[in-house]
Amino acid sequence: MQDEKIRLCVDHPLGPGQGVPLTEAQAHYLFGVMRLAAGDRLRLFNGRDGEWRAEVEAAGRRSGALRVTGQTRPQAQGADLWLMFAPLKKARTDMLVEKAVELGATRLMPILTEYANAERFRPDKAEAHVREAAEQCETTLLPQVDAPRPLTRVLADWPEGRRLIWADEGAGRAGERLAPLPEGPAAILIGPEGGFSPPERARLAALPYVTPIALGPRILRAETAAIAMLTLWQAQRGDWV
Amino acid sequence: MQDEKIRLCVDHPLGPGQGVPLTEAQAHYLFGVMRLAAGDRLRLFNGRDGEWRAEVEAAGRRSGALRVTGQTRPQAQGADLWLMFAPLKKARTDMLVEKAVELGATRLMPILTEYANAERFRPDKAEAHVREAAEQCETTLLPQVDAPRPLTRVLADWPEGRRLIWADEGAGRAGERLAPLPEGPAAILIGPEGGFSPPERARLAALPYVTPIALGPRILRAETAAIAMLTLWQAQRGDWV
Repeated sequence: MQDEKIRLCVDHPLGPGQGVPLTEAQAHYLFGVMRLAAGDRLRLFNGRDGEWRAEVEAAGRRSGALRVTGQTRPQAQGADLWLMFAPLKKARTDMLVEKAVELGATRLMPILTEYANAERFRPDKAEAHVREAAEQCETTLLPQVDAPRPLTRVLADWPEGRRLIWADEGAGRAGERLAPLPEGPAAILIGPEGGFSPPERARLAALPYVTPIALGPRILRAETAAIAMLTLWQAQRGDWV
Repeated sequence: MQDEKIRLCVDHPLGPGQGVPLTEAQAHYLFGVMRLAAGDRLRLFNGRDGEWRAEVEAAGRRSGALRVTGQTRPQAQGADLWLMFAPLKKARTDMLVEKAVELGATRLMPILTEYANAERFRPDKAEAHVREAAEQCETTLLPQVDAPRPLTRVLADWPEGRRLIWADEGAGRAGERLAPLPEGPAAILIGPEGGFSPPERARLAALPYVTPIALGPRILRAETAAIAMLTLWQAQRGDWV
């Protein structure tokens, strides 16, 4: 394979002439699955140093080395957008993580709420999905993945100057118009399938940095609401405009 | 269960006092899975007559009957939006169908293109997913599901007055701004993972009723592009405004 269709996300620093050793899993993917050989080219990124062209220097069954030859793109900065979500069932969480990368979220924050669907969220598994999605969608952005934290604690530590955009499923059915999204750094908040509890709703409604947004007359599943809100934000305030 | 949380999509006409016989699958769901019994209440819709309250008249293991007691909501009309998509791998197609219902598409049109991912699309399976998603998301709209047709034939039969909004993955990377969507009846067109072929692209670009729209700097998967475009349309032109 002589073109550079293959993109690999690595941890190693990237720069001109840089040597990049491969893990066993990376060597298996490049040489066992994708059938690259010495001299073949690919592209690398690490979420910090942009995207670089590299060549295979050594290809083994369980190891290998690449050499960076030149930069293909500078590091994208992305728009400053966090996604806070209650972990869902596994397949839907995996899908949500993949879509959040495609749609340019810069931080993924699993939150624990009173009506949680699932307590389990594995940040290491989510990070693997992040890297795979980033390889696929041609981005150089790797969103940070947090460990799950209770909603109450996240709200108590809220940083100054960031708006919290609350996908409020109660609002849409009342026939409210879709409001414009606030400007500046933002976080999108999506509740679990069962919604937020009355005390959680009251707390959110009272916070000065919260903007509730209705997403139409139908009840969206949590992951649909997340994708829709990420889309609207990128289209109004993010890197789609 | 005395409340009416359960919504069932039926084929039968619905009206005041109407008796509704149940299929074996419906009886199993209501009485075996959800444990309803004679006298319990639920809601019914059929995509035409709005949403109605009904009571269980007879509950058997493999059969049963309901009686409509009163209307809860009139039939929603929805906004006139078709979704044309190349069938994907099964799990992604299932997900796309579910999201299209949540996001209010009124017609699902699988299309065959030169770089198709999958030739197989089962309208009967898709219809089952449509009904399930509609039960879940509180809509009374049931989008029509077409059999797959070649893109060329769909374009040759294009109806007057309907805009085709083409999610053109080539456009976004060129740094184009996100354009406003056209008004009036619309169809969203999403290509397969491999994109459209050069002849298909040339044909689309030359058609007077086609509006190409770029969805940002990342390469979205087909189902992500579909969800994003449905969202933008509902937010700008559809029933979210």
